[in-house]
Amino acid sequence: MRVIDIDDPADERVDDFRDLNSVDRRPDLPALPGGRRGRGLVIAEGVLVAQRMIASRFTPHAFLGVSRRLDELADDVRVVGSDDSGPDDPGPAVPFYRATAEVMAEIVGFHLNRGVLGVARRPPVLQVDEVLAGARTVAILEGVNDHENIGSIFRNAAGLGVDAVLFGSGCADPLYRRSVRVSMGHALLVPSAQFDQWPAGLEDVHRYGFTTVSLTPDPQAAVLAESVDAERVAFLVGAEGPGLARATMRATHVQARIPMSRGTDSLNVATAAAIAFYERVRSGTMVK
Amino acid sequence: MRVIDIDDPADERVDDFRDLNSVDRRPDLPALPGGRRGRGLVIAEGVLVAQRMIASRFTPHAFLGVSRRLDELADDVRVVGSDDSGPDDPGPAVPFYRATAEVMAEIVGFHLNRGVLGVARRPPVLQVDEVLAGARTVAILEGVNDHENIGSIFRNAAGLGVDAVLFGSGCADPLYRRSVRVSMGHALLVPSAQFDQWPAGLEDVHRYGFTTVSLTPDPQAAVLAESVDAERVAFLVGAEGPGLARATMRATHVQARIPMSRGTDSLNVATAAAIAFYERVRSGTMVK
Repeated sequence: MRVIDIDDPADERVDDFRDLNSVDRRPDLPALPGGRRGRGLVIAEGVLVAQRMIASRFTPHAFLGVSRRLDELADDVRVVGSDDSGPDDPGPAVPFYRATAEVMAEIVGFHLNRGVLGVARRPPVLQVDEVLAGARTVAILEGVNDHENIGSIFRNAAGLGVDAVLFGSGCADPLYRRSVRVSMGHALLVPSAQFDQWPAGLEDVHRYGFTTVSLTPDPQAAVLAESVDAERVAFLVGAEGPGLARATMRATHVQARIPMSRGTDSLNVATAAAIAFYERVRSGTMVK
Repeated sequence: MRVIDIDDPADERVDDFRDLNSVDRRPDLPALPGGRRGRGLVIAEGVLVAQRMIASRFTPHAFLGVSRRLDELADDVRVVGSDDSGPDDPGPAVPFYRATAEVMAEIVGFHLNRGVLGVARRPPVLQVDEVLAGARTVAILEGVNDHENIGSIFRNAAGLGVDAVLFGSGCADPLYRRSVRVSMGHALLVPSAQFDQWPAGLEDVHRYGFTTVSLTPDPQAAVLAESVDAERVAFLVGAEGPGLARATMRATHVQARIPMSRGTDSLNVATAAAIAFYERVRSGTMVK
C-alpha cells in the first residue's frame, strides 16, 4: 500500500474526490459520451462500505482518508494493492491519500464524518440476461427516483436473500454515493442491471421462468402471501405515489397487495419491497 | 380563518416558526422546567401533515405558508378555527400567516419546499396505561435515537394496524419536526407514551395481557412467524447495532428473529419493525 500525504487541498491527485456535493461537477456522475458530465466513478464512504467495495467488482483505485481510518482499512487495502499490481509495478498499486479532517473537508466540500472514501471506475454494466440467469428472486424497480430508497432496497435485498435488482425506466442512479452509503455497500455487491426496453424487457424475465408480481395498494389485488411460491419470482415496485404504470402491471403475471389499514398512505417503497422479500423468505422456497 | 400577511421576517407573530434548524433555539424543542430550551411546540410541514395535525390531538394554533398552500388548506383550517374560537373571539381563531417563499425562508432559516407549516403546543403526554388499555398490537422502542427511524416506525405502525408506539429509554424525540415529517404525520395520530421506569415498566405491559416479543438477529431465537399469534402482542425493537439491552430481552416473553441471509447486516430498525407488524397482520389475528 502506498500512503501519500496530502497537505494541499488543491492537489490534483485527489481530484477524484473533489466537490462531492456539486450537482454538476461531482466525480461520481456517470460519464456521458463525448466526455460530458461526470468522471464515471463510484464513491464508497466509511470503512464498512469501503471494505464492501474492495470485495465487489468495483475495484477501488484510490482512497482518501484520515490516519485513523487508514489503520482500520490497512489489511483490506493491501489485498486490493496486490491484486492490482502488474509486472511494471511490483509494489502494491493502490494509493491511500492521507489527510487531516480539515484538508479532507476542503477537498470533498463538506465535513465527512466517516473519515474515509474509496473510489472506483464504473466497470461495464451487467446485462439483464446474465443477472437473471442464476437468480431465483429478483426485484424490479420502475420510477424509483429517490437515491435513499434505492439504497434501502439494495440493503433489504441483501438482508433477505434477493439475488438481483433490475431497473426499468425512471429510476435514479443506484451508484450515486448516497445510494451506496444507504445500501451499506450492498449496491456494489448485489448484481444489478438496467432494461434497455421497458416494459417490453419483462419478456426476458418471463423467458427465464420468473413469475412476475406487481406490488400495488389496490384492494382488488391478490394477497401477497398467496403470490410468492413460484420457483422463480420477480417483485415489481413503483415510485411512492404513482406506483407502477398500468402498462407495466398488465405485463406482469400477478398483482399483489400488502394488507394495510384503510385510509393510510401506502408504505415507503423500500419497506414494501422488504415485506415482499420477507414473504418470499417466509414461504420456505428459500433457505432460512 | 384569519389571514395575516407577513412582510417583515422579523415580525414577532411568527416567532413560533423561527430558526427551525437551530440546534439550541428551535421552537419545537421540548420545554424544560424553568423555561430553559425550547418552546415545547410541534411543527407540521406540508399540506398533508398539517391536515393530519388538525385531525390529531395536537391542535394547531397557527400556520405559516405561501398563498398557494393557504388555498389547499383553507377548508381544514376553517374547521380548526371554529373549534378553537371562544366567547371572546366570535370569528375563527387560527391565524394563517401568509408570506412569500423568500420571507418564509428567512423566518424558518432555510428554503422550505413544502410551503406551509402548522404549529401546536405539546399537550399533556399520554400515560402508558391509557395507551395500552385499548390496544391489541403495540411497538416498544429502546435506544432508537434517530428521528427518521422513529418517524418511519410511526408510518409503518399506521400502515400496518399497530395501535400504539411506546418508548423505553434512550429514544429520540418523536415530536421533532423531522420525525413528524417522515411519519407523514402519523407521529401525531398513533398514540404514544414514554415509560417512566425502564425496563421495569414492561410489567405494566404484561399486566395488560400482552405477549412481549423482542426482535433480535440472534440465530438461536425463535422464528418471528411462530411468535405473533397471541391475543395481544408487543414488539420490542432496539437501535441498529447494539440492539436491545440484555436485561430488556430477559424481561420479555419471547425472542424472535427475522430469517436473514448469513453474513449481512441486520435490517434497518424501522424495516425490521415493519416486517414484524406485517407478520402480525398476516397471522390473521387482525382485520385484513
